[in-house]
Amino acid sequence: MVNQVPQADGTWQSCKSDSSGAGTSGGESSKESSRCSTPVLDADRSDRLRDKMRRRIESGDHWFSLEFFPPRTAPGAVNLISRFDRMGSGGPLFIDITWHPAGDPGSDKETSSMMIASTAVNYCGLETVLHLTCCSQGKDKITAYLAKAKHLGLKNIMALRGDPMGADWDDEEGCFNYAGDLVKHIRSEFDDYFDICVAGYPTGHPEAESYEEDLRHLKEKVAAGANFVITQLFFRAETYLKFLDDCRAIGITCPILPGIFPIQGYQSLRQLVKLSKLVVPEEIMEVIEPIKDNDAAIRNYGIQLAVEMCKVLLESGKVPGLHFYTLNREVATMEVLRQLGLWIEDPRRPLPWAVSAHPKRKVEDVRPIFWASRPKSYIYRTQDWDEFPNGRWGNSSSPAFGELNDYYLFYLKSKSSKDALLEMWGEELKNEASVYEVFTCYITAQPNRNGHKVMCLPWNDEPLAQETNLLKDELEKVNRRGVLTINSQPNINGKPSTDPIVGWGPPGGYVFQKAYLEFFTSSENVSALLEVLKKYEPRVNYHIVNVHGRNLTNAPDMQPNAVTWGIFPGREIVQPTIVDPVSFMFWKDEAFALWIEQWAKLYEDESPSRMIIKYIHDNYFLVNLVDNDFPLDNCLWRVIDDMFEQLDASSKSTCLQVSSSV
Amino acid sequence: MVNQVPQADGTWQSCKSDSSGAGTSGGESSKESSRCSTPVLDADRSDRLRDKMRRRIESGDHWFSLEFFPPRTAPGAVNLISRFDRMGSGGPLFIDITWHPAGDPGSDKETSSMMIASTAVNYCGLETVLHLTCCSQGKDKITAYLAKAKHLGLKNIMALRGDPMGADWDDEEGCFNYAGDLVKHIRSEFDDYFDICVAGYPTGHPEAESYEEDLRHLKEKVAAGANFVITQLFFRAETYLKFLDDCRAIGITCPILPGIFPIQGYQSLRQLVKLSKLVVPEEIMEVIEPIKDNDAAIRNYGIQLAVEMCKVLLESGKVPGLHFYTLNREVATMEVLRQLGLWIEDPRRPLPWAVSAHPKRKVEDVRPIFWASRPKSYIYRTQDWDEFPNGRWGNSSSPAFGELNDYYLFYLKSKSSKDALLEMWGEELKNEASVYEVFTCYITAQPNRNGHKVMCLPWNDEPLAQETNLLKDELEKVNRRGVLTINSQPNINGKPSTDPIVGWGPPGGYVFQKAYLEFFTSSENVSALLEVLKKYEPRVNYHIVNVHGRNLTNAPDMQPNAVTWGIFPGREIVQPTIVDPVSFMFWKDEAFALWIEQWAKLYEDESPSRMIIKYIHDNYFLVNLVDNDFPLDNCLWRVIDDMFEQLDASSKSTCLQVSSSV
Repeated sequence: MVNQVPQADGTWQSCKSDSSGAGTSGGESSKESSRCSTPVLDADRSDRLRDKMRRRIESGDHWFSLEFFPPRTAPGAVNLISRFDRMGSGGPLFIDITWHPAGDPGSDKETSSMMIASTAVNYCGLETVLHLTCCSQGKDKITAYLAKAKHLGLKNIMALRGDPMGADWDDEEGCFNYAGDLVKHIRSEFDDYFDICVAGYPTGHPEAESYEEDLRHLKEKVAAGANFVITQLFFRAETYLKFLDDCRAIGITCPILPGIFPIQGYQSLRQLVKLSKLVVPEEIMEVIEPIKDNDAAIRNYGIQLAVEMCKVLLESGKVPGLHFYTLNREVATMEVLRQLGLWIEDPRRPLPWAVSAHPKRKVEDVRPIFWASRPKSYIYRTQDWDEFPNGRWGNSSSPAFGELNDYYLFYLKSKSSKDALLEMWGEELKNEASVYEVFTCYITAQPNRNGHKVMCLPWNDEPLAQETNLLKDELEKVNRRGVLTINSQPNINGKPSTDPIVGWGPPGGYVFQKAYLEFFTSSENVSALLEVLKKYEPRVNYHIVNVHGRNLTNAPDMQPNAVTWGIFPGREIVQPTIVDPVSFMFWKDEAFALWIEQWAKLYEDESPSRMIIKYIHDNYFLVNLVDNDFPLDNCLWRVIDDMFEQLDASSKSTCLQVSSSV
Repeated sequence: MVNQVPQADGTWQSCKSDSSGAGTSGGESSKESSRCSTPVLDADRSDRLRDKMRRRIESGDHWFSLEFFPPRTAPGAVNLISRFDRMGSGGPLFIDITWHPAGDPGSDKETSSMMIASTAVNYCGLETVLHLTCCSQGKDKITAYLAKAKHLGLKNIMALRGDPMGADWDDEEGCFNYAGDLVKHIRSEFDDYFDICVAGYPTGHPEAESYEEDLRHLKEKVAAGANFVITQLFFRAETYLKFLDDCRAIGITCPILPGIFPIQGYQSLRQLVKLSKLVVPEEIMEVIEPIKDNDAAIRNYGIQLAVEMCKVLLESGKVPGLHFYTLNREVATMEVLRQLGLWIEDPRRPLPWAVSAHPKRKVEDVRPIFWASRPKSYIYRTQDWDEFPNGRWGNSSSPAFGELNDYYLFYLKSKSSKDALLEMWGEELKNEASVYEVFTCYITAQPNRNGHKVMCLPWNDEPLAQETNLLKDELEKVNRRGVLTINSQPNINGKPSTDPIVGWGPPGGYVFQKAYLEFFTSSENVSALLEVLKKYEPRVNYHIVNVHGRNLTNAPDMQPNAVTWGIFPGREIVQPTIVDPVSFMFWKDEAFALWIEQWAKLYEDESPSRMIIKYIHDNYFLVNLVDNDFPLDNCLWRVIDDMFEQLDASSKSTCLQVSSSV
C-alpha cells in the first residue's frame, strides 16, 4: 500500500505503512522506469529460479522440489512424462534430472538426461535443474552439453563431480576433477545465464579428508558461483541442522536445501546406502529388518519417518524448502507432502492452456485453439519459432509449423497400449456408425458395447475436460448422428477469473469466451451445413476443410478470431486463444493424420475396419464454428439442428420426386 | 457468400451464388495466403486513394471531394482547420490543397500549402491531395518538395503546370514546362508511391492550339502515370459530358471527376472567370447581374444552379464523384451536398478517438486515454515515432513524447479569442472557488454569473462530449467541491458497437469500458483520498502526481491498464484506450502547463487572478482513477464521497480536539 502523504507545501513525506498491502505494489514512476512487455499474468514465469527462491524465502512460503532419474526405455519415458504432469500438479518449485554418464546422457535419445529435462521444461512447463557431472569429461564436451542445454531452454544446472570411472581418477588432463571447477567453467563460458546448484554433504563427502575440509570445499564451490545447495540424504534432522549451522558459521549464505529420502523399500534403501556410502542408523534398521519383505509396511514406516523429520526441519525456521529423492515413484513422496500440507493442487491456471517453461516462450500468451487437447504437440511444432505471439497473434506468425514427419515421437503417442486402444475403439468396426458410437461413448463416459470405457480418442489423450462437460448432453446428441466432435468450448460472458471451471489468470478479473465447436463430418452433412450457415451471417464464422486442403471460410480478411479473453485489474486485455485461419491448415494435416496413424493402423492392412477409418479420413470434412455473439445463448447447436432438418427435408423431397415419377 | 458444394467424391464444384453476401467475404486459404497485421476495423484506412475510388465505383456509391486554398494568416489557418473538422464530418472522399507559388508553398510556415495539407492528413485524418506546380521550378526543388510531402505523410499529388511567372515561359532549362513532365518525374523518382491527379479542361486549355490537341495532351499526362483527372470548372452539364465522352473515345480510361463551382458571390465569380479564362454563359449572367449586390440571393441561385447540374451529372451514370471548388467557404457546398443526399454525417467511429491519416499510423489502434480531448496534441507529440502500438501498448512504447516547447503552435491553441476566454473563465478570479465555478459551468452548460456560457476549458476546446453527459450530475457535484474533472468515461459492460453514444468499430460487435475519472484537486483532498483508496484495493487503480512529478500509484508492475476495448465478429480483441503509467508522466507536464499557458497568462503579471491559477498549478495534484470492476456499478463516485466524508470527519475531530483543549 502506498502511503506517502502529501503535505500542504506540496512536498511528500514518507511514512511506514502498517497495512500489509498484499496483492498490490506501490511505486514511483519516472521516465526511466523499466517497462514490461508482457501481461505477466504469472509473475513466476519470467523469474529465474534464484528469484523464485528469494521471493518464497521472503514471504516465508515453504516449497518442495523433486528429483527424478532418466528412464531406461521409451515406454518408461512416456510413463515418466505423465508422472511429471501428475506430480507437477502439486506445485513443486522445481524438479531435477540426474545425469547418467553410462546412458549417453547428453544425446538426443528420448531417454537421455538431456531430453528428459528438456521435455520437463518445454512440454510439462516445469522449472527444471539438469545434473551435469564433470569427472573424466573434456572441457569441450562439457561446454557443448551446456550449450545444448541452453538451446533447449534449460536454465539451471546441478554441478557435480560424479563418480570416477576407474580407480585412478586424479587430475586427468584437460578434464575437471572437482565440481568447483565445473562451476567456474560454467560461469566463465556462460556468464550468469545458468542458475547453479551444488551438492552438500551433511556428514562430509565420503572421500573428503575431514568434515571441516569438506565444508571448506563447499564454501569454495559456492564462492565459484553456485546459487544454492542441495544436500545428500540424511536420516536425522539434527544431522542437517548441525551441517546448516556449520555452513553458516563459515560464511555460506545461499539457500541450503535438505535432501529428503522417504524409505520406500528394503532393496532401494540398501542400494542407495551402498552408493552414497551412508550408514543407516541402528534404530531405523531395527524397525525395517523384521518387515523387510512387506513393501507396504516399509513404505508406511518410511512415510511416517520422513514426515516427522520434515516437521522438525520446517519448525526449526531454518529450512525454506524440502528436496525429495523420489526414485521416480509417486506415492510415498506425495503422501509425505500431503501430510506436511505442502502438496497444493492449485486449480488456478495462469492461462487456459498449459504453459511451457522455455525462456524463449516466456512472453507467449496467444495460441490457436486447435491444439487445446494436444498442447505438447503444439509446443513441439512451434519449437523452432524465434518469437512467440505476445498479446496478439498479429503478424508475428506467418506461422511455420514443424512438419509432421516426426509426429510419431514418443511424447505424441497415446499413453495407452495398442490392446487398450482396441478395447476402447473396437476390435472390429462394422461401418461409420461404429465410429460414431466410439465418439459417443467417449463423450458420455459410458462403457462401449463390450463393456470398456472410452477414456481417450486420437485427438484427446485424456477424458473429457470439466469445461467440455458443460456441453455434454448436446455433444452426445450430435455425435450419435455423425457430427464427430474433437474440440469445443461454451460461451462465457464475464465469469470471475477465479471460477473453478472456466477461470484463469489472476484473481479480480473476468473471463470471456465465444462458443466454439470443431468436428469431422460427412460431405453430405457439409453440403447441408453450408446452406444453413447463410442464415447465420455474420454471427457464425466457419472454416471447412477436407484432407485435400480445400478451405471454405467466411473469416474476414483471413484474420484471427479471438475466442477466449480476460480482463484483469490494471492490465492490458489478454486473449490467449484464437481461431486462426492460417494455423488451421496446419492443424488439419495433424487432425486428419491422427485418423490413420492412431486409429487405422491398429487394424490389419486391407481389413474392413481399417478401410472404414480410411474412408472417413478421405471423405469427411473438418469443420470449425465460432458463435461471435458471446452474450447470447450459444447458437451452434441450433446450426447443427438446422443442418439435420435441412438433410431430412432434402431426402424427403428426393423421395417425393421419386414417387411422383414412378 | 461461399457456395462451393462438396461432392461425394471429395472434390469441389463451384457454382454461382444468387445471394449477395454483403458484409462477408468468402475465400480460400492456403499456406501462402497474405495475412493482415492490423484489425482493419476501417478497411479504408490502409487503402490508397485509387483503391478507395475503385471500390466506390464498383459499388456505385457516389462520393464528393473538396478543394481548399491555403490561408494568408495564422488565425486564418486555425479557422481553416476547424473547417476541415466540420466539413470532414460530412464524409468527403478526399480534400485537396492548392499550391500558391507566391506564398512559399513548400515551407514550414503554418500557412504554407505543404503544412496545411500535412495538418489535414495528420491532425484531421483527411485523405488529402497536395497540388504541385512545376512551371519555373528546378527539378531538384520539385524532388525536395515531393520528398518532404512523403515524409509528412502525404500520399497524393495533383500535378499541374501552373501559371508562368512572366511572359516568356517556354522551355526553361532544367525546369518542367508541362504537367506531363512532372507526372513522369514523380513516377521516375518515387515509383508508385504517390497517387497522381491531373487537370482536365472541358472546353480545352486556354493556351492549347485546339480542343483536340488538348485532349491528346491529357491522354499523354494520364499515360505518363496519372491515376485520375479533375476537371476545370464548367457551367453546363453537357460541357462535361461531351468532354468525358471525347476522353473515353481517345482511350482515357481513368476516373474523370467534374469540378463543381457553386457560384457564391459576384466578385468571386468575376475573379475566377478572369483567372480561368472561361466565359460565363449568357443565361447565368442575365440572372446574376440584376442581383449582384445581394450576396444571399446570388448564393441561393448558385446553390440551385449547382444542384441542378449535379443531378444531371449523377443521373448520367457516368460520374462516380463530384469535386467542389469551395473557395474555403462552407455554406454553399454543404447545402448543395445536402440537397444531393451526399452529405452523410456518419456517427459511427472506427475507433473511439480521431484517427490520423498518416500512412505510418495506419496500424495504430492503441492510445493513452489522457489525450482523449486533445487528439491533435497527441498526434503532434508522437509524430516522430517510427512505430505505433498495434493491438497492445506493450513495449513498442518506451514512449518518447515530443517536448512541449512547441506546444503553443497554432493548432494547439484555443479556437476562442482572448476576450472570449476571459468572458468564459472570468475577467477576475477571487479565489480557488471562482475556478471551481468555471469548471461547474462548463459541466452544466449553464451561463456563468456574468451570463456567459463556458464552452471550453484549457483541457477541452469543445463542449462536453455526449458520452461524458452520461455522468453530468455526478460531475457537477464533485466539481462544485473542488474535484476539477478534465477527463472521464462511464463503465460500459458490452453495449452494441453500433450504440450511438459509446459505440465504435464495425457492426455486430460489443464495446466495453472501465470507468475512468481524471481531475485536479488540492493536497488536502489527496491526503484523504489516499486514505480512502486503501478500502478499494485492488478494485481501483490510481495515479496521483503533482507538478514536481512525484507519482504515487498502485499499478501492478507499471503496466498499462486497458480501459476501452471491443469484441468483433471474426477479429482479435481491439483495446484502443489504455491508462499507461509512463505516458501519464508526459501528459501531466502538458496538463499542468495548460493552467499557465492557457489560463494564467490571460491575466496581468502579479495580478491576483494569475496568482490564483499559479497557486493551483503549484499545489494541486493531478489524479486518475480506474474502476476495474466494469460489470458492477461505477464505484468512483463513492470513492470521492468517501474522500469528502473523510475530510469532514478529520476536520470535526480537529474541532473537537480544539474545543476539548480549550
